[in-house]
Amino acid sequence: MSPEQVIGSINGINAKPMRVGVLGFGGLGQAAARVLAPKQEMKWVAAADQKGYAYDTQGLNADACIGIYRAQGSLGYFEPSGTLSNRSIQDLIERADGVEGYFLALPNLPNTFMATVAQQFIESGWRGVLVDALKRTSAVEQLLELKDELQKAGITYLTGCGATPGLLTAAATLAAQSYAEIHSVKITFGVGIANWEAYRATIREDIAHLPGYNVERASAMSDAEVEALLDQTQGILALENMEHADDVMLELAGICPRDRVTVGGIVDTRNPKKPISTNVQVTGRTFEGKISTHTFTLGDETSMAANVCGPAFGYLKAGISLHRRGMYGLLTAAEVMPQFVR
Amino acid sequence: MSPEQVIGSINGINAKPMRVGVLGFGGLGQAAARVLAPKQEMKWVAAADQKGYAYDTQGLNADACIGIYRAQGSLGYFEPSGTLSNRSIQDLIERADGVEGYFLALPNLPNTFMATVAQQFIESGWRGVLVDALKRTSAVEQLLELKDELQKAGITYLTGCGATPGLLTAAATLAAQSYAEIHSVKITFGVGIANWEAYRATIREDIAHLPGYNVERASAMSDAEVEALLDQTQGILALENMEHADDVMLELAGICPRDRVTVGGIVDTRNPKKPISTNVQVTGRTFEGKISTHTFTLGDETSMAANVCGPAFGYLKAGISLHRRGMYGLLTAAEVMPQFVR
Repeated sequence: MSPEQVIGSINGINAKPMRVGVLGFGGLGQAAARVLAPKQEMKWVAAADQKGYAYDTQGLNADACIGIYRAQGSLGYFEPSGTLSNRSIQDLIERADGVEGYFLALPNLPNTFMATVAQQFIESGWRGVLVDALKRTSAVEQLLELKDELQKAGITYLTGCGATPGLLTAAATLAAQSYAEIHSVKITFGVGIANWEAYRATIREDIAHLPGYNVERASAMSDAEVEALLDQTQGILALENMEHADDVMLELAGICPRDRVTVGGIVDTRNPKKPISTNVQVTGRTFEGKISTHTFTLGDETSMAANVCGPAFGYLKAGISLHRRGMYGLLTAAEVMPQFVR
Repeated sequence: MSPEQVIGSINGINAKPMRVGVLGFGGLGQAAARVLAPKQEMKWVAAADQKGYAYDTQGLNADACIGIYRAQGSLGYFEPSGTLSNRSIQDLIERADGVEGYFLALPNLPNTFMATVAQQFIESGWRGVLVDALKRTSAVEQLLELKDELQKAGITYLTGCGATPGLLTAAATLAAQSYAEIHSVKITFGVGIANWEAYRATIREDIAHLPGYNVERASAMSDAEVEALLDQTQGILALENMEHADDVMLELAGICPRDRVTVGGIVDTRNPKKPISTNVQVTGRTFEGKISTHTFTLGDETSMAANVCGPAFGYLKAGISLHRRGMYGLLTAAEVMPQFVR
């Protein structure tokens, strides 16, 4: 493809739907399948969980897949397109060569897991787009180390593309434009879920941020132990100064040093209503010397699933557009404008 | 340049500063010069007004240029780098071949003016990046018609890259990602300026949106007539359902049909304090069927100049990055993530 091409029609890149996959089929992966279901521009053709995968070039049905997964514990039981496998991701990558991009809706436990998956893609020879919704700074840093390998492999990898990091990091990047210098980026999130058991991995990742916990300890907790902890706190997890990759992403984008970025929030595991409105506040000094704050606030009725999966597919579409132009390597949510998927 | 290149280091594109110019030297052009003054990554080397231009590959001094312009009415009097000319833009383009990009801080009067300037660049053989802060839908539509010509000429043109359209349109694009369908995008701006005479062209463009006025009538008004109108309204211009290019830009980006986008605002020409906080509200339906609204609000202490010029140079930097990769044509602020200029 010639590098001298029209770039005006980014959103009309193809009449044929983009074929996409979802790796991981817990709460987030299932929500991703539901987000994709009504889309014209993307067709969901591949998915994997720990015990198996499903692949159908004609498209997978979200309700049917979720039903099988809930009833039998794996997409591998799905007929006729499911296959049981204890190396499900590996097998799916090898078989599903028509997939243009994947949303990695995997819990990052252990903290090196996403980088390991990226390595599998690199080694497989597959070329396409990968999007993750990683949260921790250290996890994104591991991906950054794979930058050159991803580029050589012909993979366009977009990291930190969920809600925060992701949507709110991108909003901070936009907000920063009005200022000559950024003094602080303060991200505060509120999450309300009716039942923590629908997001077992996500809640464990949150617990890992509490004083006295880490990723290993949280991931080793039994459901009963999580339950006991939540009983002590009336179901509330209050998180401050979290290790969140918004900091490294904004630093890489040249917005401000990472220590000016703080992330905290309140998770209510017993109430779908958000305890506080999720927002990002960007404070800086304008060229005239005025100090001010721009604020981006998410509507309370929008769920974590909507604010993670929507942006993830918006970045996947933007990534496919870059990939088709031969642009490979690693980018973050702060560097690319996501594209609305119809 | 090979299309297969590392895209991870978008923000570290060059140790050498980008050489940029500003066309137009009214309130907005002068603010643009001041915004650029402390930047390490961009060097301001070229500027033009109606009667002349200044060009110095070593860089122009903002205070000195503004002083000359205010005292003598044109940058053409600036020594030693000024030249008087009644075809200043044309002459500058021909002479300043080392300029990588221009911010077109020109009043778009008449409404076809920006497209005419784009034509001059196309015909000149110059290759680089152009960024405008156009406001009207019809003006952006004229640029859209030049898309193929811009691409063939090797020009990367980013349109609608000020505050609104621009920063707020991009924020709306981000906000839309959480939703399956967008019901409305409502932009409301507040502008407070101490003295309308510092923004004569901008205020006339605002007046053109009032009932009974149009671009021709507003642009033909004498200062005394503007003064008389503002006396009648106590200095307030209240604008509703304005013809604003946010609508066509969001439609092109696939967010929603243009009739779901509304723009209105209040301009106080006698008070630097904003009469209301500028904001964009994006209302939609999530994949779960919830209706909600994301809101992006600008800090009241940020001026129109900061919210227009900052984003404009952020888009110029992003545009230069695209141009260096051989991507030419026309894009809007809703399609590209602006990059923070240090």
